[in-house]
Amino acid sequence: MHTILRGKTKEVIIGIDKPFVIIGEKLNPTGIKKLGIALVEQKFDYVKMLALRQVAWGADVLDVNVGHPQIEEALVMPMVVEAVMSVVDVPLCIDSNDPLILEAGLKVAWGKPLVNSVNGEEKQLSTVLPIVKEYGAAVIGMAIDQEGIPATAEGRLAAAARVIERAVQIGIPIEDIIIDPLVMTVGHNSMAATVTLKSIELIRKEFGVNMSLGASNVSFGLPDRHSVNSTFLALAMQAGVTTSITDPIKLGSSLKATDLLLGRDANSIRYLKYFRATAKLKVEEAAAKEAPASGAA
Amino acid sequence: MHTILRGKTKEVIIGIDKPFVIIGEKLNPTGIKKLGIALVEQKFDYVKMLALRQVAWGADVLDVNVGHPQIEEALVMPMVVEAVMSVVDVPLCIDSNDPLILEAGLKVAWGKPLVNSVNGEEKQLSTVLPIVKEYGAAVIGMAIDQEGIPATAEGRLAAAARVIERAVQIGIPIEDIIIDPLVMTVGHNSMAATVTLKSIELIRKEFGVNMSLGASNVSFGLPDRHSVNSTFLALAMQAGVTTSITDPIKLGSSLKATDLLLGRDANSIRYLKYFRATAKLKVEEAAAKEAPASGAA
Repeated sequence: MHTILRGKTKEVIIGIDKPFVIIGEKLNPTGIKKLGIALVEQKFDYVKMLALRQVAWGADVLDVNVGHPQIEEALVMPMVVEAVMSVVDVPLCIDSNDPLILEAGLKVAWGKPLVNSVNGEEKQLSTVLPIVKEYGAAVIGMAIDQEGIPATAEGRLAAAARVIERAVQIGIPIEDIIIDPLVMTVGHNSMAATVTLKSIELIRKEFGVNMSLGASNVSFGLPDRHSVNSTFLALAMQAGVTTSITDPIKLGSSLKATDLLLGRDANSIRYLKYFRATAKLKVEEAAAKEAPASGAA
Repeated sequence: MHTILRGKTKEVIIGIDKPFVIIGEKLNPTGIKKLGIALVEQKFDYVKMLALRQVAWGADVLDVNVGHPQIEEALVMPMVVEAVMSVVDVPLCIDSNDPLILEAGLKVAWGKPLVNSVNGEEKQLSTVLPIVKEYGAAVIGMAIDQEGIPATAEGRLAAAARVIERAVQIGIPIEDIIIDPLVMTVGHNSMAATVTLKSIELIRKEFGVNMSLGASNVSFGLPDRHSVNSTFLALAMQAGVTTSITDPIKLGSSLKATDLLLGRDANSIRYLKYFRATAKLKVEEAAAKEAPASGAA
C-alpha cells in the first residue's frame, strides 16, 4: 500500500517496498527554546534554517508544530507553513490535535500534506477526520482508544481498527491512513518495545497500512539514548514501520543503513550518497560554528 | 534450546530467552599487527591485556585465533590459551579450521569451550567433529556446503542441516551446535543481508538451534560501518541470532540496547550496568592514553 504525499513539485511515496520516509521533527518549539522565542516574535529566519537543515540531512517530509503557551497557534501555523514553503519543496506534516489549528495549516499548505494526528477518541475522530477529508490530506491515526493507550498488542490493533474504519467511512482512502502503533518508555516497562513490535506485526497483517513511529519516547530516561533509538527503529522497520517523525541529523545514517540491509537500496546508492552529503555537511557546519565564535572573540 | 559454555568457574548460557552472548573477536592477529608481533615473539602481556579489556567491555566468551604466517599455530595456541586463562575466567572459543590446532587448544582449555568452526565440507566434518565430541566442546557449524556458501536461504538451511545431522550422528548433542548462517557484503549484493535474515528464520523454525553471526563482513567496503553493523546485529537478533563473534568495545552498547528492546533485560538492569561500567572505562582508558604520552615527552 502506498501513501503519496506531495509538496509543490516533490512527491514522496511511503510504502514497505520503498525507502524509509523520514519526517523531520525539529520544527517544534517543545524542547527547542530558541524556536519558541522566534515564533513568539514572529521572526521566521530560524524556522527557515531548521527547514533547510533538516532537508539537507535527509528529511523527506517536515513536521510543523507551533504548540507554545504564548502563541496563538491558529494564527502562527499558516505563517510558519508559508515560511517553510518559501525555502524547501517537500511535503509538510501539519501537527496539532486541535482541528482549528490543523485547518489553518491545511488551508495554506501546498500539494498533499499529512495531518499529525488523530486518535481513537470520539471527539477527535468526529472533528479531525472531516478536515482531513475536506483538504484531501493523509493522516496519522494513533492506536489510542477512549481509555488511553492499550497495554496489549491486540488492544492497539483494535484501536487502530477503529480509526481506520471511521476514516474509511467518511471517504478517506485507506492508503491515506498511517497508523502510529505507539511506543512507551522501555526504561519504565521492559516489555514496552516488544508490545509495539507485536502491534506492528498485527496491524500490518490485518490492514497492510503504512505505519509511523516516534522513536525517541522509547529511550526516555535512559543513558546513551542513541543506541536505543537507532536499534529500535531498525527493529520497527523490520516489523513493518515505514516512516518516522524523528531527527534526521541523529538517526539518518542508521535509517539509511537499515534500508540497505532490508534490500531497499540497490547498489548502496542511497546509502553512499547520504554518507557523502552528510560528511560534507559536517565539515560545513563545524566551520560555520567556528566562524561566529572567533568573530565574537 | 540452551548451549552451555564454561570457563574455570564461570558459566555462559546461550539461548533465545537469554541476554545476547558476546564472543570477543580481538584475540586474532589478522588485522591487529601488534598482536601478530607479540605472538611471534611469544610475549603474552599484550594477549592478557586484550583478554582483560574485552571482558571489561562486556565479552562473555573470548575467541582465540593464532593464525599468522610466521607462527607454528599448534605450538602457540596452547600458550595463548594459558595466558588468557591466567587473567580471566570466561569460556573460550578455540578458533581454527585445522583439527591439530583445535586439539592443541582444547587440550589445555578449561571447562567447556566452543570450537570455531566446522563447515559442511566432507573433510571438515570428518576431522573436526570427532575432536569436538572427544573434548565435550560445543561447535559453530557454518552454513557452507561442498560448493561454498549457498546463494539462497533454502541452500543455507540445507547446508546447516548437513552439519547438524553429521554432528548429532557422532553423538554431539544438538544444543551444542551453533549455526553460523553467514552474511556476505551488502555493498556487493544488496540482497546479502535479507538472504541471511531469511536463513536465520528458516534455521530457527526447522531446528531451534542457537545461531552466531560475525557481523563485520556485512559492511565491508562501506563508509560508517558502525551504523551498518549495529543495525544489522539488531535485525539478526530479532530474527533469532543469539551470539556473535564481534568487537564488544564498538558494539556492546547497541547489543545491550537490543536486548533491552527485545524484552530480555528486566528493569534495564544490564543496560544501565553496562553504561556505567563502560563510562568509567572510557575515562580510565583516556587517562591511560594521556599518561605514557606525557611521560615520553
